[in-house]
Amino acid sequence: MYSVDEVKKSALQHITRLKNIVGEAFVFTDAENLDKYAHDETENLHFVPDIVIKPKTATEISQIMVLCNEHKIPVTPRGAGTGLSGGALPHMGGVLLSTERLNTIIEIDERNLQVITEPGVITEVLQDAVKERGLFYPPDPSSKGSCFIGGNIAENSGGPKAVKYGVVKDYVLNLEIVLPTGEIMWTGANVLKNATGYNLTQLIVGSEGTLAIVTKIVLRLIPYPKYDLLMLVPFNSLEKAGEAVSAIFRAGFTPSALELVEINALKIVSEFVDSTVVPVTDEMEAHLIIEVDGNHLETLMNEMEAIADLLTRFDCGDVFFADDAQQKAELWKLRRRVAEAVKIDGYTIEEDTVVPRAELPALIRGVKALGKQFDFDVVCYGHAGDGNLHIRIKKPGSKYSLDNPDVIPALKALFTLVKSLGGTISGEHGIGLIQKEYMDIVFDEAGLQLMRGIKKVFDPNNILNSGKIFNSV
Amino acid sequence: MYSVDEVKKSALQHITRLKNIVGEAFVFTDAENLDKYAHDETENLHFVPDIVIKPKTATEISQIMVLCNEHKIPVTPRGAGTGLSGGALPHMGGVLLSTERLNTIIEIDERNLQVITEPGVITEVLQDAVKERGLFYPPDPSSKGSCFIGGNIAENSGGPKAVKYGVVKDYVLNLEIVLPTGEIMWTGANVLKNATGYNLTQLIVGSEGTLAIVTKIVLRLIPYPKYDLLMLVPFNSLEKAGEAVSAIFRAGFTPSALELVEINALKIVSEFVDSTVVPVTDEMEAHLIIEVDGNHLETLMNEMEAIADLLTRFDCGDVFFADDAQQKAELWKLRRRVAEAVKIDGYTIEEDTVVPRAELPALIRGVKALGKQFDFDVVCYGHAGDGNLHIRIKKPGSKYSLDNPDVIPALKALFTLVKSLGGTISGEHGIGLIQKEYMDIVFDEAGLQLMRGIKKVFDPNNILNSGKIFNSV
Repeated sequence: MYSVDEVKKSALQHITRLKNIVGEAFVFTDAENLDKYAHDETENLHFVPDIVIKPKTATEISQIMVLCNEHKIPVTPRGAGTGLSGGALPHMGGVLLSTERLNTIIEIDERNLQVITEPGVITEVLQDAVKERGLFYPPDPSSKGSCFIGGNIAENSGGPKAVKYGVVKDYVLNLEIVLPTGEIMWTGANVLKNATGYNLTQLIVGSEGTLAIVTKIVLRLIPYPKYDLLMLVPFNSLEKAGEAVSAIFRAGFTPSALELVEINALKIVSEFVDSTVVPVTDEMEAHLIIEVDGNHLETLMNEMEAIADLLTRFDCGDVFFADDAQQKAELWKLRRRVAEAVKIDGYTIEEDTVVPRAELPALIRGVKALGKQFDFDVVCYGHAGDGNLHIRIKKPGSKYSLDNPDVIPALKALFTLVKSLGGTISGEHGIGLIQKEYMDIVFDEAGLQLMRGIKKVFDPNNILNSGKIFNSV
Repeated sequence: MYSVDEVKKSALQHITRLKNIVGEAFVFTDAENLDKYAHDETENLHFVPDIVIKPKTATEISQIMVLCNEHKIPVTPRGAGTGLSGGALPHMGGVLLSTERLNTIIEIDERNLQVITEPGVITEVLQDAVKERGLFYPPDPSSKGSCFIGGNIAENSGGPKAVKYGVVKDYVLNLEIVLPTGEIMWTGANVLKNATGYNLTQLIVGSEGTLAIVTKIVLRLIPYPKYDLLMLVPFNSLEKAGEAVSAIFRAGFTPSALELVEINALKIVSEFVDSTVVPVTDEMEAHLIIEVDGNHLETLMNEMEAIADLLTRFDCGDVFFADDAQQKAELWKLRRRVAEAVKIDGYTIEEDTVVPRAELPALIRGVKALGKQFDFDVVCYGHAGDGNLHIRIKKPGSKYSLDNPDVIPALKALFTLVKSLGGTISGEHGIGLIQKEYMDIVFDEAGLQLMRGIKKVFDPNNILNSGKIFNSV
């Protein structure tokens, strides 16, 4: 591997050829532009690329990759930069390849309930476009208003709707990709069932831009459900709230969202967005936000009542039913802005643990105990219905960094706990730079070797987003 | 690669060590036993292994693999032998490794709606066991009464329920596998969302036993729907039936099954199982079998009526509603036994084409034209709701073989048509031996190279089910 200085020299040597490929207007080396692409939404990470390039087509990307592969110049692909694990950061310098100009929804195929899109389309823009035709693309990460669909593919993103509708991988039918060696190819076919060779499509989904650059995406869509109902339920005990979650599913219900927010987080976010919709009292430890959706309003109302009835067994307080679109929007705003609010409050590390759903109470108990043991404040929230709990820790006076000696043992203990509960370290954020040192907690060496081997098959010169997920061989 | 004779010599040389691993009673070399494992449900293929071995545990399988890997002895893993693409056939001789003794359902985890099972459990046995707890594992290939769940993982099987509930890949959370080099490892975690490294789980699903031997399977389950309704609708035109299929989805309905059976197939199977439940008249060209399911009977009845109403636009005949469990069973028996019946009638090659759903009429038109062009009789049936059409051809006097010069150009033309419609060559049967020569119709060389590279990462000595899906390098 070259040093950062050698990379810089090599990258800048070829800048004329790069400009010839994409046009002079789309290659940047000025400090302001380089700095814009030096961070994402991960805390305190800052890596400046040597060149930022903004191609428009797969063919241009192919030419860039051929050039960089020949000269072993690191390439870091980037969507909207909303990632939470540092996956889009150019930590080795070199070329930062932004997909922001591949921003066209190519076709909404109403006959087949599919959409073909480029990766640089904002997720919510895509969702709104298909919704206009009565169609639904469910995966909705909190950042949906700013993240790119291409980034969602890279991270196998989730969001609140995943509990009923699944995550990104459940909607991707086929991908056009550019390999690190420059070949442009499709991974599969635009079909709902496929038993034709290895599932290259699913191998690319969640590979965090380390295997190929996605240039076209074929997603399946479903009919948009006509109605949804939303309620908020306070619980006297955080653990009881966790127990209630699995009870809902065991009773045969499948809510379209089932979110948990701990009281501290709710207080902080309510203040942050200046909302009084939820009466926050000190007796309550946590709230569940529960949504059901479908095409028959009466059925949904019955379902909601039955769930509320079930929850009384778990020491819950008065249920708050969102009456109208405005109240629903207000509740969702609170939920969506929790991460931002608690981050500003000093909870700086967001973990993305996921366990089998019924292990949530054990995870919550364990997390609180770890907080005491390591002298951290801990706050929990997230997609409880999926067993996907976001955990943030705060230690006044201690600032987060990748190698903070205060933090590493606590995270190791947390991930060891998660593993012991049958879970893993990331449900929807990816591993990127910040979790890769913990991969050996959840994977044997045999598994890591397979991943490194696959990486080498796709990227023999190890130029594409290397050093993410795992350290190179 | 060794010759068949060299393989035989090498395999038999190590028989004592194999017997030491699994016990003498579970290693077979007699003609009768070898012959039992020389064929599957694929037509006219017969390959005799040198040794049949029946291990009981992952540890035993690991020891077998270490031995065979060291001596480069081919190993062919096998489930119940119900495959339709020759994937479980020992075409290179060597060791046939049957998973039939790994036949325990380890745990039905009602708290998490999951089941942990060994691969040698019959799919329907597994389905019935979880149904007793009110839980549902939907993928239901026609062979569900005899196939193994492990084989379903290998082929990424589907079945009628896939149209609403998805295929095998949509239910597999985690797999314990034995690598060709002997390591035992888990591919992921028992969680509903996972963004932790490459998706090794989905890479194993559908890899047809070429990458690893699956020894434990963690499946997610869903609540069993309380009610289902079934109807059969005759159409005057096969193409119109195909058009009706996509219209149902475009209108916002999601049936739990949507099957198409061409009139010839229905006549043959009705006679074969001696059923008169369906009045078969010569004016009709095809029937759709449509099922809806859910927890609210009235809603389902309204849905069924709305679908029936919609279908009148497509020149359909009188709708036949199945009145009770017996009539439903009878209709499903007809559907499930179509393949067997038409095979006995001389339709010897079953293809497993899949296209985007709305392209079904174009596929049907094209298939009929190809039949005329190549002078074959053609019959169509299958999972129309998924665009997954099984096509069988018959040519009196011409017997099928892998390299029949009559057959190859017709299949090439068929698969080229399928590709041009956005489809691919297998929806649920896999590629195995019999389709591998056609892989270059649907994959570029770049894609095939990636698959060969992945195969080599998992299986450096190319001993595990090699020569399936694609030819080795």
